[in-house]
Amino acid sequence: MTLAMPLATSLRRADLEALDAVDPLAGKRGEFLLPEGVIYLDGNSLGPLPAAVPARVENLIRRQWGEDLIVSWNKHGWMDLPGKVGNRIARLIGAEPGSVISADSTSVNLFKLVCAALALNPGRTTILSDSGNFPTDLYIGSCAAALMAAGVSLRIVAPEAVLDAIDGDTALVMLTGVDYRTGRLHDMAAITARAHGKGALMLWDLAHSAGAVPVDLVGCDVDFAVGCTYKYLNGGPGAPAFLYVAPRHQAAARSPLSGWLGHEAPFAFDLDYRPAEGIGRFICGTPNMLSLVALDAALDVWDGVDMAAIRTKSMVLGDLFIRLVEQECEGFVLASPRAAAARGSQVSLRHPEGYAIVQALIARGVIGDFRAPDVLRFGFCPLYVRHADVWDAVAHLKAVMAAGEWRRPEFRARAKVT
Amino acid sequence: MTLAMPLATSLRRADLEALDAVDPLAGKRGEFLLPEGVIYLDGNSLGPLPAAVPARVENLIRRQWGEDLIVSWNKHGWMDLPGKVGNRIARLIGAEPGSVISADSTSVNLFKLVCAALALNPGRTTILSDSGNFPTDLYIGSCAAALMAAGVSLRIVAPEAVLDAIDGDTALVMLTGVDYRTGRLHDMAAITARAHGKGALMLWDLAHSAGAVPVDLVGCDVDFAVGCTYKYLNGGPGAPAFLYVAPRHQAAARSPLSGWLGHEAPFAFDLDYRPAEGIGRFICGTPNMLSLVALDAALDVWDGVDMAAIRTKSMVLGDLFIRLVEQECEGFVLASPRAAAARGSQVSLRHPEGYAIVQALIARGVIGDFRAPDVLRFGFCPLYVRHADVWDAVAHLKAVMAAGEWRRPEFRARAKVT
Repeated sequence: MTLAMPLATSLRRADLEALDAVDPLAGKRGEFLLPEGVIYLDGNSLGPLPAAVPARVENLIRRQWGEDLIVSWNKHGWMDLPGKVGNRIARLIGAEPGSVISADSTSVNLFKLVCAALALNPGRTTILSDSGNFPTDLYIGSCAAALMAAGVSLRIVAPEAVLDAIDGDTALVMLTGVDYRTGRLHDMAAITARAHGKGALMLWDLAHSAGAVPVDLVGCDVDFAVGCTYKYLNGGPGAPAFLYVAPRHQAAARSPLSGWLGHEAPFAFDLDYRPAEGIGRFICGTPNMLSLVALDAALDVWDGVDMAAIRTKSMVLGDLFIRLVEQECEGFVLASPRAAAARGSQVSLRHPEGYAIVQALIARGVIGDFRAPDVLRFGFCPLYVRHADVWDAVAHLKAVMAAGEWRRPEFRARAKVT
Repeated sequence: MTLAMPLATSLRRADLEALDAVDPLAGKRGEFLLPEGVIYLDGNSLGPLPAAVPARVENLIRRQWGEDLIVSWNKHGWMDLPGKVGNRIARLIGAEPGSVISADSTSVNLFKLVCAALALNPGRTTILSDSGNFPTDLYIGSCAAALMAAGVSLRIVAPEAVLDAIDGDTALVMLTGVDYRTGRLHDMAAITARAHGKGALMLWDLAHSAGAVPVDLVGCDVDFAVGCTYKYLNGGPGAPAFLYVAPRHQAAARSPLSGWLGHEAPFAFDLDYRPAEGIGRFICGTPNMLSLVALDAALDVWDGVDMAAIRTKSMVLGDLFIRLVEQECEGFVLASPRAAAARGSQVSLRHPEGYAIVQALIARGVIGDFRAPDVLRFGFCPLYVRHADVWDAVAHLKAVMAAGEWRRPEFRARAKVT
């Protein structure tokens, strides 16, 4: 790795090494295959490779698909995997067993649940969301509303205005728990309670929450949730998403994507659709085994992990990063809440040259990412990010800024995906 | 190649070995990892493992995801893969470059295209399909119609009644080219022409056609198509499906699943949805890389393969199977069209004990499958099924029947998935 610059703080790197030495999560880093010399602060976008994944996928491909062929659907429990993986995720988000499945993409699952929710709460005119929501949620919400019911439309307010905007016209409040750009946390309990108080249903997108912060779907009395598994759950690029339907809604909720594997008896091949009992009705087409097996293997990392320990370390890492950046680097504006309790597991900075700065950091092996127009995002996943990594990352950032390294043409040329 | 040899008692296994010796597709079998001692006649349900797949997936996991992490989206062209894989499939189904993407499941893609088609052809009252269609098509068609437009409903007629049932009320004709249960082929050109003549749009499900029979979407002037890649295209269990939109519809057709990756500029993170130019607007969520890379590798098998050669051998294999079964085994009723030209690449038989007979065959290493209530299905994929395999399969079937082997309790006990 390129030489970084010394930091002028009363903290010493040794202090952070000392924190790592007593970190109860320290052993988890060894369960990932991380490249040498890389400080990976982009697990909020694509989690790194868990060590258990390659062998499990190879076994699925060579032994199950290759040798047992079609018989594997029964012999190796392929059919049960969406629910089995769902139950493993359920533990991490405070959901009941039997209330989560892993399937399709977050966008597709959002569509299923927005349609299901609108059908359960007719006669109201708005889906309420906020301008900090991830765009796909807004696109899907708007499109589902237009398809589902004449007169229902998407209303977008500022994140801080959500609570007061919930009213008697609100059919569904649809929000993302952690803002993808700033890391700002919504108060799930308060907003869900307000939604219910006004007769609205509540759908949470947990894309940046699952595996990042403690989530208590049961305790918050949430109706519906979706989430992503390729971020903090490390399921691999484009891994299957998940969805949650509260048990009290499962008998009445209907998926608009009435595919054959959500049928009560798929292999009866009936001409009429009868939804399966329970959460299984939200499965649509044939589950993708390569991806589901990779995700199942990736979830092994979470065995025995307490989300409270994750949260504690995550807050420390984020606070450290903010403190060191503000002390060592000029020109950045904090885009995340300063209070750790108000943040997810990422810290975002604003800088007009954010794109080039992120590229210069990547060239040094410090991987964060950029979100238009000027946001540098740094994810701090306590499973594999060390306290000393925060020190080193800031030392590199300082070097990038001090030498104007980001001005190099190769860092300013925009690639298609940032 | 024609089926000129006598198929009475004078046929010998050596005659079939002779056909294998001059088979222009014989070399393709070596591009699959087939288990020893298995005659695989279920590639119409789950294609076997192409030899190129394991290494390509391992490279994706260990080198790309594991080492290059998030940077891989650009560096390794991940974002382009749905279209790149789509173009490779396009060649096999007579579609224009830029008109096919690989994404999501067949069911989800059906939903996208049924909704898009209904919006393009308003003021009509029916989606026409047939009772031989795969159930998921009927479920999705019915559900999409109910969501999309008051007054549009699904009309199901017998397969042979489709042509005459198309009328001025028909918004969309939605059919599967090859019947999953019987292998009966629809006449794509004639039905599409009739649909257009009556002002209806045409959607073909190519699940049992792609890689099985020559398909000419351009020549037939088809509007929309979907298909499956884990059957004759050997993409692996639950592999991503594909969809086709004729270039003439691409500017006007809108996906109801308006996910962020179908946006014109996904990384602008706009609050408003603007569909991408061209077929890319039918992408929804983040593409699943493990599955797409496996499928991409699986498609290597098709390089240089002429669908006409596939069809010729497929017809010979099916004819051979029918004649040998009728000669050697009693109690079966042919459920497929007798004329090869009217069949896809499978032969189905009916027998009241079909389930147990299929299990007994599987125990002998002859893998077909069963579809309720009484259908035994045997797929003949010319890439890896040899002429002599047909002989051997029938010899095993004869043995199963002669000894009453299927009566054993272990063969009669029903498993969940059949």
